[in-house]
Amino acid sequence: MGDSGIMNPKDMSETGFDGRTLAVELFDTLRANSSDTFGITRESFAAGEEEAIGVIKAAAESFGLTTEMDAAANLVISLPGREAETPFVACGSHLDTVPQGGNFDGAAGVIAGLICLSRINAEGIAPEKNIKVVVLRGEESAWYGKACVGSHALFGMLTPEDLASVHRKGTATLGDALRRAGADVARIEKGEQLLDPASVAAFLELHIEQGPVMVSRDLPTAVVTGIRGNFRHLRIMCRGEAGHSGVVPRWLRHDSVFAASELISNLDEHWRVLLEHGHDLVVTVGTIETDAEHHSVSRIPGEVAFSFEVRSQSTETLKAFYELMRTECRQIEIKRKVVFEFDRRIDSPPARVDPRWVDRLRQISEDLNLPTETVPSGAGHDAGVFATAGIPSAMIFVRNEHGSHNPHEAMDIDDFLHGTELLFHALVDPVP
Amino acid sequence: MGDSGIMNPKDMSETGFDGRTLAVELFDTLRANSSDTFGITRESFAAGEEEAIGVIKAAAESFGLTTEMDAAANLVISLPGREAETPFVACGSHLDTVPQGGNFDGAAGVIAGLICLSRINAEGIAPEKNIKVVVLRGEESAWYGKACVGSHALFGMLTPEDLASVHRKGTATLGDALRRAGADVARIEKGEQLLDPASVAAFLELHIEQGPVMVSRDLPTAVVTGIRGNFRHLRIMCRGEAGHSGVVPRWLRHDSVFAASELISNLDEHWRVLLEHGHDLVVTVGTIETDAEHHSVSRIPGEVAFSFEVRSQSTETLKAFYELMRTECRQIEIKRKVVFEFDRRIDSPPARVDPRWVDRLRQISEDLNLPTETVPSGAGHDAGVFATAGIPSAMIFVRNEHGSHNPHEAMDIDDFLHGTELLFHALVDPVP
Repeated sequence: MGDSGIMNPKDMSETGFDGRTLAVELFDTLRANSSDTFGITRESFAAGEEEAIGVIKAAAESFGLTTEMDAAANLVISLPGREAETPFVACGSHLDTVPQGGNFDGAAGVIAGLICLSRINAEGIAPEKNIKVVVLRGEESAWYGKACVGSHALFGMLTPEDLASVHRKGTATLGDALRRAGADVARIEKGEQLLDPASVAAFLELHIEQGPVMVSRDLPTAVVTGIRGNFRHLRIMCRGEAGHSGVVPRWLRHDSVFAASELISNLDEHWRVLLEHGHDLVVTVGTIETDAEHHSVSRIPGEVAFSFEVRSQSTETLKAFYELMRTECRQIEIKRKVVFEFDRRIDSPPARVDPRWVDRLRQISEDLNLPTETVPSGAGHDAGVFATAGIPSAMIFVRNEHGSHNPHEAMDIDDFLHGTELLFHALVDPVP
Repeated sequence: MGDSGIMNPKDMSETGFDGRTLAVELFDTLRANSSDTFGITRESFAAGEEEAIGVIKAAAESFGLTTEMDAAANLVISLPGREAETPFVACGSHLDTVPQGGNFDGAAGVIAGLICLSRINAEGIAPEKNIKVVVLRGEESAWYGKACVGSHALFGMLTPEDLASVHRKGTATLGDALRRAGADVARIEKGEQLLDPASVAAFLELHIEQGPVMVSRDLPTAVVTGIRGNFRHLRIMCRGEAGHSGVVPRWLRHDSVFAASELISNLDEHWRVLLEHGHDLVVTVGTIETDAEHHSVSRIPGEVAFSFEVRSQSTETLKAFYELMRTECRQIEIKRKVVFEFDRRIDSPPARVDPRWVDRLRQISEDLNLPTETVPSGAGHDAGVFATAGIPSAMIFVRNEHGSHNPHEAMDIDDFLHGTELLFHALVDPVP
């Protein structure tokens, strides 16, 4: 340990607590338990997730920490503070994965929390507030279609529709799964809060970055500024008029593909300009399809369907870009004699990261000689649910190559230990 | 008949020859014989086409015309001229239709030719050259995949692959169909010319317009300037890199759909500019598809496949636009970090209409107070095969609503009789 009292991952072992070895062992154990034919599979509310919880629970207990299952079947690991009655500081993440995913998405945040609590205990530090690691169940929507089940359940945010949603390959519902896992489904069904938000001083989630920004910018860790919300249409239909490609000249065409291409190109140019102006924005047309029943190389496409998604940390930006899209559609309708038809718009609001926590995490980063740069989170996380419940929440991203939800996730253990160090200081010395 | 010697459709009956009644009867008979549950079906080399041929043959013979079957099983209706040894003047078209098509595509040219020969006979006109109507078999590629079978067979242009091509819903080959129809398949297989191009002074084809130009421009008839050729790719693959839509910012994307949209939009703009400059050009992207196995609203599309077709009467324009497309692809590859992959390019050369015949048909149109305007043919026709065989060829288009190859083809009988009048004068007084 240096004079500053801040440990580097490399000298952790000098304190007698070896975070690196613990991290490597835990990641290796999880990997060994959940290797699929291809990648890692830890199914939500099933053996994969439960075995992983068992590994973490056993490790926590071996370090003298208390464990319990909350009313939503989440594992909670606790370390008492000096003033037991004050709201507690929480960190955590999840242990389930998508089918054939990677070993780090979710598990990194759980293992980081466990390492922090074990170290606080091992070093005899007496924090003011109780500190907890919450291992949230069923974060991945891949299994039942609903994301962040464990955190939504805690705050009475699961709807009857959510509970009735069926497993991707079976007939069991999410309600069945929660019941089997030991959750208090009767209370969850009523929309009761299982955890009083006022009892939680903060929720901090360490997570691998799921995009390529930190690799490209050479940032081992970063502080998250917000969780992007989105507006989506699963299907926008552009209808023109089919016809023989050779015989309908340009001035008489109602060509759906030229119309959709113009729309997409114009939106791309608006996106570029808005980024220049400093707005947070991501735009995606993930699917586009002419009708395979009728299309052909020599037929003017009478219709084409495509999806549309815009994401931003700012609700205003989402609204403005959505209106821009609709305006472009109206102009192209006139110009190209086509009609755009929209299915139901699906809105998912942005989640606000607590600005005091962003400042605090950047300050600690500076003290640790870690980057003070910030990145947005493009994907949803349990921290977003805690934030929506009114709890001051924040996230730490750790650099990761090849994205997430695939077997090629690649997090360097040094980067992970830097992020864990940042989490450790945030838990021990939280925003008041 | 007026002083000019040129009849109007309305006073045809004054000469004792009632073309209108004959036309209406023949179209009605064909329609009654070949009505499908939806539209008109006259299958090539099958009962539908054969019954129609029987109707035309009987009508021709009832008007004192000679009929025979040529070595390619085409029906030939002949009227002797004063100088039997000179090359003959031919007109004609086809009687087959696509499945559930319309009554006029093809049949209009056959009935027009029959009316012209019957009228010449009825009026005791003695033309210099022999005049023939050729009813060409199997023009529609919908049945065996090969278009203009009867004309290709006449000039030794059917390949072994063509003859081996199989019926759309069966196992019989095109060779089987020709043999069954009475064609001399042994000679066709050898690629022999069954008709010496030098024996044909001209081939004139009257046909309904298959596009909307003449309706939009209010042209009952028009003279065709050329038959567009085309360059095609059935499948161009644009490959980028898939990823989570929320987490990969614009500067790190390899987005295949944005890339393809930019390409298509740029090509559309080039098309617009080239039309302004007077080039003949039609551009179509008939199919576009992201991969349904992998695409999603929240996934950056890693790849998108699309077709490309450019048509023009000018081989130079086809080549130039194709190169423009490839150049755009190269620029977009660099700009957007994607790769375009091309399947085999399929080329179909333009067919040249004889410019002296264009002048002659425009001159007759002027004499008849018909429009002298010209339009290109965007689709292929038997006349194009005759032109490729070196025979001076030309086409007359008759206005038609709702395009062709569908039950909604709508040709006005007045327009048809105007076109027939034009054909009549061209046959009686051909380009020397």
